[in-house]
Amino acid sequence: MKYVVTGCAGFVGSNLTDRLLANGHEVVGYDNFSTGQMAFLAQALDHKRFRLVCGDVLDLGELTAAVAGADVVMHLAANADVRFGTDHPRRDLEQNTIATWNVLEAMRQGGVKQVGFSSTGSVYGEPQVFPTPEDAPFPLQTSLYGASKAAGEALIAAYCAGFAMRGCIFRFVSILGERYSHGHVFDFYKQLREHPDHLYVLGNGQQRKSYLYVQDCVDAILLAMDKASGPVEVFNLGTDEFCQVNDSIGWITGHLGLRPRLTYAGGERGWIGDSPFIFLDCAKIRKLGWAPKLTIKQGIERTLQFLQKAPWILERK
Amino acid sequence: MKYVVTGCAGFVGSNLTDRLLANGHEVVGYDNFSTGQMAFLAQALDHKRFRLVCGDVLDLGELTAAVAGADVVMHLAANADVRFGTDHPRRDLEQNTIATWNVLEAMRQGGVKQVGFSSTGSVYGEPQVFPTPEDAPFPLQTSLYGASKAAGEALIAAYCAGFAMRGCIFRFVSILGERYSHGHVFDFYKQLREHPDHLYVLGNGQQRKSYLYVQDCVDAILLAMDKASGPVEVFNLGTDEFCQVNDSIGWITGHLGLRPRLTYAGGERGWIGDSPFIFLDCAKIRKLGWAPKLTIKQGIERTLQFLQKAPWILERK
Repeated sequence: MKYVVTGCAGFVGSNLTDRLLANGHEVVGYDNFSTGQMAFLAQALDHKRFRLVCGDVLDLGELTAAVAGADVVMHLAANADVRFGTDHPRRDLEQNTIATWNVLEAMRQGGVKQVGFSSTGSVYGEPQVFPTPEDAPFPLQTSLYGASKAAGEALIAAYCAGFAMRGCIFRFVSILGERYSHGHVFDFYKQLREHPDHLYVLGNGQQRKSYLYVQDCVDAILLAMDKASGPVEVFNLGTDEFCQVNDSIGWITGHLGLRPRLTYAGGERGWIGDSPFIFLDCAKIRKLGWAPKLTIKQGIERTLQFLQKAPWILERK
Repeated sequence: MKYVVTGCAGFVGSNLTDRLLANGHEVVGYDNFSTGQMAFLAQALDHKRFRLVCGDVLDLGELTAAVAGADVVMHLAANADVRFGTDHPRRDLEQNTIATWNVLEAMRQGGVKQVGFSSTGSVYGEPQVFPTPEDAPFPLQTSLYGASKAAGEALIAAYCAGFAMRGCIFRFVSILGERYSHGHVFDFYKQLREHPDHLYVLGNGQQRKSYLYVQDCVDAILLAMDKASGPVEVFNLGTDEFCQVNDSIGWITGHLGLRPRLTYAGGERGWIGDSPFIFLDCAKIRKLGWAPKLTIKQGIERTLQFLQKAPWILERK
């Protein structure tokens, strides 16, 4: 099969690209390298079945040309930064909503019929039901990031209904593992590398979050794309556990052999729009036969091993 | 208070504008007259407290200037045409999603803190629960129109959370009454005016729909804006009844004294994305003390009386 992966040089995108190539598929990678890293494509670029297009998902013409002739588009290009949405309110609209419309329109023009989309557990806002299932009550969005992804989901479902496409929407918890390059484990590791004796924590440290190891995430995506029966299917992707930020601090400092002094900013939320509790019900994807291989703790340790071997990732702009 | 009404020359927008003026408020009307009618503003234009800005909601600069200094923005400008979304897939994105972002951004830049938004029962897609409450299960969108409005809702909630605004989101059923100028009653009346002996019906005529009289809708909007307690509140607006398309045909032909031959296109849906059953649970707005004054049948009759007195509306492009 011929896949297009938007955001192919990103964290999840590059891991997915490597896996698709390993599974014998042809991959056109599409990335504008605004946050993607060429280094993440080192393996892929050695591959005969891989072709890289340096392009922007906001450039509909270039995107349409890249997508033409593909069987499946995996749309992973995004502004993945949930925290700083209010600093630049147009970014999420453009990079997550308008970009997704462009991907769908490029597919429609090119007759491509199947799409996978990386959405987020943030679309549940601050849910009242835990673990939160895919058909939780119609949420109120609490972040521009969540809103922009909810909008992307809506567009995908409408295009599937209107133009006889098939789509899988994946609501991720935070993803961890090799090539992880932003998020709280990253921030904590970076802080501790600069000042091993103290750690500044947003919120009160009691925020409860879920994490999933990137290879488990890729397993789930490919299984769902293969098995999904409806024209549009939504899958939560996470582990059946959550941890407090304070738990993760214990694992991180334990792994690094440090005992820093902790300072808390205070408050239930790390920032405006931070959800104090994310815990998704993943029964639907598990019913297809998937289970994560790593626990949250193991995922965090793999992430630290990666960051220790790739200090350049901490230095980049 | 000083209100800005986007889409002030539209069906609901012009009725709302007249009511706000009658209630003693100052109104800046904003419309690009792409579908709005100057004739709908005849009363408002006579009013000292009304100022008209001929502008496009996609023009952020002009919109920001118009919004500055207002207390409340009532954002009713939209592409209201649910049926032809797949003929021009960018229209809903631009006019309903990006336009809503522009309104919010104009408000943020101008320090305007309260917004009302005309959304739609179409955001429930094809719901499984009837009557459908505001917290129905997270829907899958089935039309580009519904998707674009769901995206607008998401943006409003996120802006309210991120920038300390207050918002009311109104999920309308189809609205009827004076200045009604598109929808199935319009289409049927127009057909019967051209050929009183037969009527062509999309779908099988058994689609079940809800309707609300425009003055009842305006009552509900103003009550909710006044009483809503949370930073973001969502209200279904409809009657506690629904009718089949076939019922409405009986009322329309009865009112007109016609007995046309009926031809059905067939199928459960009138078009791709048409929801075969729309019936909203309006307990939340009723709890605030609102009740509609007109039944669906009465609303249809008022609409026909309006159309009979305003034949120009049937002739316009």
